[in-house]
Parts: sequence; C-alpha cells; structure tokens
Amino acid sequence: MPAIAYLECVRCHHHVSAVTPQTLCPLCAGSLYVRYDMDELKRTARRDEIVPRAAASGASLGMWRYANVLPSGTPEKPVQPVTLGEGWTPILRSKRYPGLFIKEEGANPTGTFKARGLGLAVTMAKHYGLQHLAVPSAGNAAGALAAYAAAAGIAAHIFMPQDVPFANYLEGIVYGADVTMVNGLISDCARMVGENIKAQKDANTPANEVWFDISTLKEPFRVEGKKTMGYELVEQLGWTYPDAVFYPTGGGVGLIGMWKAFEEMEQLGWVTGKRPRMYALQATGCAPVARAYDEGKDASEFFQNAATFAAGLRVPKPYGDAIILDIVRQSGGEAIASTDEDILKSILDWAKHEGIFLSPEGAAATAAYDALLASGDLKPTDKVVLFNTGAGLKYTDMTAEAMHLRRPGTLPTRMPVGGIITPQ
Amino acid sequence: MPAIAYLECVRCHHHVSAVTPQTLCPLCAGSLYVRYDMDELKRTARRDEIVPRAAASGASLGMWRYANVLPSGTPEKPVQPVTLGEGWTPILRSKRYPGLFIKEEGANPTGTFKARGLGLAVTMAKHYGLQHLAVPSAGNAAGALAAYAAAAGIAAHIFMPQDVPFANYLEGIVYGADVTMVNGLISDCARMVGENIKAQKDANTPANEVWFDISTLKEPFRVEGKKTMGYELVEQLGWTYPDAVFYPTGGGVGLIGMWKAFEEMEQLGWVTGKRPRMYALQATGCAPVARAYDEGKDASEFFQNAATFAAGLRVPKPYGDAIILDIVRQSGGEAIASTDEDILKSILDWAKHEGIFLSPEGAAATAAYDALLASGDLKPTDKVVLFNTGAGLKYTDMTAEAMHLRRPGTLPTRMPVGGIITPQ
Repeated sequence: MPAIAYLECVRCHHHVSAVTPQTLCPLCAGSLYVRYDMDELKRTARRDEIVPRAAASGASLGMWRYANVLPSGTPEKPVQPVTLGEGWTPILRSKRYPGLFIKEEGANPTGTFKARGLGLAVTMAKHYGLQHLAVPSAGNAAGALAAYAAAAGIAAHIFMPQDVPFANYLEGIVYGADVTMVNGLISDCARMVGENIKAQKDANTPANEVWFDISTLKEPFRVEGKKTMGYELVEQLGWTYPDAVFYPTGGGVGLIGMWKAFEEMEQLGWVTGKRPRMYALQATGCAPVARAYDEGKDASEFFQNAATFAAGLRVPKPYGDAIILDIVRQSGGEAIASTDEDILKSILDWAKHEGIFLSPEGAAATAAYDALLASGDLKPTDKVVLFNTGAGLKYTDMTAEAMHLRRPGTLPTRMPVGGIITPQ
Repeated sequence: MPAIAYLECVRCHHHVSAVTPQTLCPLCAGSLYVRYDMDELKRTARRDEIVPRAAASGASLGMWRYANVLPSGTPEKPVQPVTLGEGWTPILRSKRYPGLFIKEEGANPTGTFKARGLGLAVTMAKHYGLQHLAVPSAGNAAGALAAYAAAAGIAAHIFMPQDVPFANYLEGIVYGADVTMVNGLISDCARMVGENIKAQKDANTPANEVWFDISTLKEPFRVEGKKTMGYELVEQLGWTYPDAVFYPTGGGVGLIGMWKAFEEMEQLGWVTGKRPRMYALQATGCAPVARAYDEGKDASEFFQNAATFAAGLRVPKPYGDAIILDIVRQSGGEAIASTDEDILKSILDWAKHEGIFLSPEGAAATAAYDALLASGDLKPTDKVVLFNTGAGLKYTDMTAEAMHLRRPGTLPTRMPVGGIITPQ
C-alpha cells in the first residue's frame, strides 16, 4: 500500500499535505484528490499481485484487493481498514443484450455503492482520530456512514430528507447514528450540516467534538473509495475497457472516481486502449447534469422542485457537476434523463426478463440504454458496463408506491405510519 | 464438472436415476441426495483449480467456482447455469470476539442464502425442461424462486403467509410470479401446493403444465446448491474447519447441505481434521428442533401457534428435522432457541457495535452465541463461523415493528396499508 504523496486540488492544482485531515482546497474550494508517487508505484504495484493476495487472504478483501493503490499511512502508523466486505461485486451478463454487463452494487454492505466511499473515508477518519462525522445525504450515504461509523466506534450525524426510503431511516436508527430528518432536500441537509459546524466553531467547541463534514468531494477519500469501481470493472473484463459505462448520477462521484481510476491504471500500465464513453443518467424530475449537457453549459444550475422516486438522484446541484460534464463530453458519452414512468417500466422489465430487481437509480440507466438502442445510437453488441448502484430491495416502499401496489388481505402492513420516533 | 452418478435416498439408500426430474424416494419418501463417482472425482477435481478458474473467468463465478463438484449434465447436453451472481459471499471478522466470523449471506441476489439452492434447482429445472415450478415458503425462498424462474423463463407459483415481510411480497410481484398470500403458515402453503398438483394430475393436465414442487428436500438440487456454503467457509478459512458453525434453522437445509459438503471434501482430500460442532438456532416462538433436541427425540413435533418476527424461522416442522438433529448430535453441537426480545437486542447490539445489520434469523444465532459465551460453554477465541442468512434490510417492516419504531414527521409513510392488489 502506497503512502499519499500529497492531495491535489482538481481545479487549481494546488498541493496540500495529507498529514492532517483536509476538506477543500484552501485556495479555491475545489475538491482534493489523493495523489501517490506514481514513479514508485509503477515499480512496486503490479496487477498480477491482486489475485494471489485475495486468494491468500481467504477472508474477503473486497475493494481492499486494490490495497496497492489505496492509502497506506506510514510505516509507524499504517492505515487499518474499517471493512464490512464492501466491493468486488458481481458483474452479470445480460440474458438479452450480448454486450451488456450489469455491475451489481446492491451486493455491497448497506445495499449500495456508497459503502465503498464511506468505507474508505471512515477508515481514514479513524486513522486521523476524528470522533464526529456528519453527512448530508439523499439517503444511502447516510445509511453507509452510520454503518461504518458504528464499525469504527465513531459518532455519525446524518441529515436526510424526511421522505427518503424507510430503509434509510431505519439504518440510521439501528446503527445508533444521530439522525435528523429534514423537511427538504439534500441541499437543505448540506446547509444544516454547515450551519451546525459553524455554530460549534463559533462556540469554541473543543476540536475533537467539532463535526467533520464527510460530504462527498468535500474531503478526499470518498472519491478514492469509489474509484475501486473503475479498477473492478476493468479487472472483471480481463484488464480491458468496455465501449461505454452507464452510471446513474445523483452526486456523480462514482463516475468521477472511475475516471480517476482509469487515469491511474493507464499510468501504471494496467490497461491500454480507448477509455469508455461515460454516460451520466438522471431522472427528468431532477436532471441538473442532463440539462446542462443539453444546453452546452460547463456547470449545472440548481434544479428547482426536484422530485423523483429514484431517491438517490434527488441531488439538485451536484458539487462535482463541472467535473462530471467534462468527463462525459471528453469521453464522447452523454447525459440523459428518463421519466419516472420509464424508470418503473424498466424495473419491471428487468425483474421479469432477467431476474434482476434494480434500484430506481439503476433503472434510470437501463431506461436510457433502451432509448439509445431504440434510436440506433447504441447496438446490443456494444460492450457496456451498466451500474445498478443499489439493491431494489432497499426501495420496497418507493417502488410499491410507484406501482400503486397494495398488500392483499385485511392485515395491517407491518410498516408503521406517521407518529413520532420511539427510540429503542 | 462431474456427471451425476445417481440420486441416493438419505433414509433407505435406494438409488434413483437422475435422467428425469425426481422428487422424493419412490420407496420411502426420503430426501434424495446427488451422488457423483467419487473415485473419478478424486482424480479429476482439485481444490487448487478453483482460484485460477475464478480469476480467468473475470466475471463473477460466485458459487459456480465449485463447478467441479456440481452437476455437469452430459457432454451432449451440458448444464447451463442460471446465475445472478449468488455465492462467494464475504466472511467478516467480528471486531469484538477474536474467534468469530460472520458469513454474510445478505450479499446474495434477493438478499438471502436461498439464492444458492434455488439458483441450482432452477438451473436443473431448466436443464430438464420443466416449465412450472411451485414452492411453499416462509418468504425468502419465494422471492428467490421468483427471481431465478424469471431469469430462466420458467413460470413460478409461490405460496407464502400473508404476513411475510413486505419485501417478499413485492419480490414475487415485480419478478412476475404467480403469488398466493395464505392466511396461515408455510405448512399450510405446502399443503396447498400439494393439493394444486394433485388436482392438476386428476384433471389430466398435460405433463408440461403440471407444477413441479421445488420444496426444499423434496427435490435433490436445493440442498446441492446450499452445500456450497460448506465449501466456501472451509476455503475462506484456508481449507481448514472452524471449531463450530452457527446456523439459523428454519428448514435447516443449509446446515444439512454443509454437512454433505464436509463429507465430500473429506473424500476428495480437500480438508482434514475434526468437523465443526453444528449449532441449530431457532426462536422460542417456533422451536421444533430445539424442543426435540432438549427432549432427546429423533424427530420434531409440529410446533403449534408458531409466532416470531424472525419470519424465516417460522417453519413448524422442518422436512429434514431428523437429519438436522442427527447432525447436531453427531457433531457435538446444540439446538438452541432465543426469545424475540433477545433477538432484537442482538440486532441492535451488532448494528451499533459492529456496523452489521443482521436479519432476525441471523440474530437468533448471535443471541445464542452470547448465551453460550455467558454460560462459559464457548470462549470468544473459539473459531466460530456464524451465518447471517439474510440482509437486515429485507426486514425493515418486521424490525421496525419489533422496535415500536415510527417514522418521524407527519408525512404518510410510503408503504401502503391494507387494500387489494393493483397489478402493475
């Protein structure tokens, strides 16, 4: 595992030391990326070490199979992974489209890809000795933070919209997090996290009690964890690139992380050839990136009245919008939004014909795939890796409501309605 | 992959050919096990083939990494796996008990270990050309059958109690199964499947339209799929046995399958040493095996008024009860029941202190583990593999109800109450 050489601002390329925990670039508030000494890494990190190491470990390395390209700490103080088995998820061949692979992120702990970014970010928070982590979330990042913080013995403060899938609320409670349900969107949650931290600092709260904002792209390690999706898809395709990657885009950091992975892998000589076209997929009810793409803009505008049952896509203005748009355009991909109706149709289509119960976010990607097949812009033989970013089972309530589905019989459903929290 | 030599009755040892689909022993109604030519297998099947084959496949073999000990069909008609990425689940080290490993079956497709047995059984059903599969279920087997049947293009007829976790009902609907919600238990569901098949035969229904009963232990392949849990835990422990295996026991076929795996692995020379003590864990609200164990009986009696929020343990008389009791006693294990209160406590304990959200069934095992630590019958350093048979996220409604947890705010929950099915 390599030491971090420095953190680099993705916007102004300023370098910052990683010896103490960092948030944003102190000069321009850009996101910080982890950088290693790539010359040394070229000599020491080899892709053919990965399989023997994973086999020798017996137990499950998950995304830590890529330990040789993840932060190591120092010889005196090595990084100790906080792991729940995240990563190394299945890649499934479609039964209908010969070139299409589904990357099944629902197999992760807490049922979504969020486990990767928060697995690494909580690992580093523990390494730095942080004791309070706070996050605004559309739902799944909150659940993942609650789980990894519990595993690490760190306090989690999570803020999410009050109408998230019930599973997200329950996760927060069972993992023992400090849960705030907000009458608003993730953007309101982000504001509240910031206000709380400011108030703590203004009140001269002891440093180890001030919350650390672990929002994605506002600290360097969530993107670093998510980059493992890029390593995995390339390894699972025999160290080759597909023609295209379809990625449901709320915050869009998975897509950003994969692009970072591709850059690193090329520098290391682990993969060659043309990078995949990157498709950012959204819902028409919250499509800031797709709208900016269509309008030829470099950044998104705040998407008013965001509303879609694809809860994870309800991010009205992703912090990484400019980076996403740049990657999509550079790679020759597209940003496309689908209606909730088409997303639900695609959930049922995939469940009935492939036996795969997609999350609404994953189905935003399959719906766009269908549209591109229909328009002739894509062929069923094009090699595509499409991410199902979460388990359909995590959205039973949202999907049932979208289907107008009611449970038969006169029994009350087991899901309690309204009322107040009764802490266990 | 080996050809099936014959099917063997586990009770009277009668041999039956596997050329056509089989249910129970025609002589004594015992369960049929798949047998291979072990002399040939000893020459051809090697454990050190497994890692290179999995690595070469790139995509996810899952439980099919053990293809060399799973049915192959014939050279003219090879078995074609119907796979959704089941198996090869993480094995996680406890952060508190140095000898304890959690086998995380929640990472499987459909969120439970049921994917293994039904993955293999549907594979073989497709191989035989069966067109209608029926199953009585406490919930999770129904969801898994619905998924694999959808993937295989086979009709699924599922019967489950009307008060199963909502996720199980929704799975049945989204995967397009023929769903019957029964005002009763799995035993009533089993009776109804039998009555339907009898009525179909009495009415001279064409053979390819008569349902095939894919109940566990009433056909040979579900146990054969579940045996992969035994192979996996031994491989993940570096081809050694743990001291004990803790297994939540509804139908108990996972435990039975693992015992078969141990027998095969010993014959193949893949593992040596003392087999683990096998612990069958139940809930006091439905504890037929624990009761029979306590009373020194060879088989269980029907457990009246079965009731526990650990929905998967609501099996009032498992078909394999005698086999389970025999394995538990032979191995020096125990059958233990925990109260719903202790199960819920253990769910919260594990979520808060280890970051793992157990299913209620999994928590029946951790609750028993705690009890045995407290009594001194077990030490924290004893090497134990404990199965979390399903994802906690699949039980959001049951667990929330058990916690008396209500969603905050005045918004209606997204889970609809009562009423009738509106097919999508």
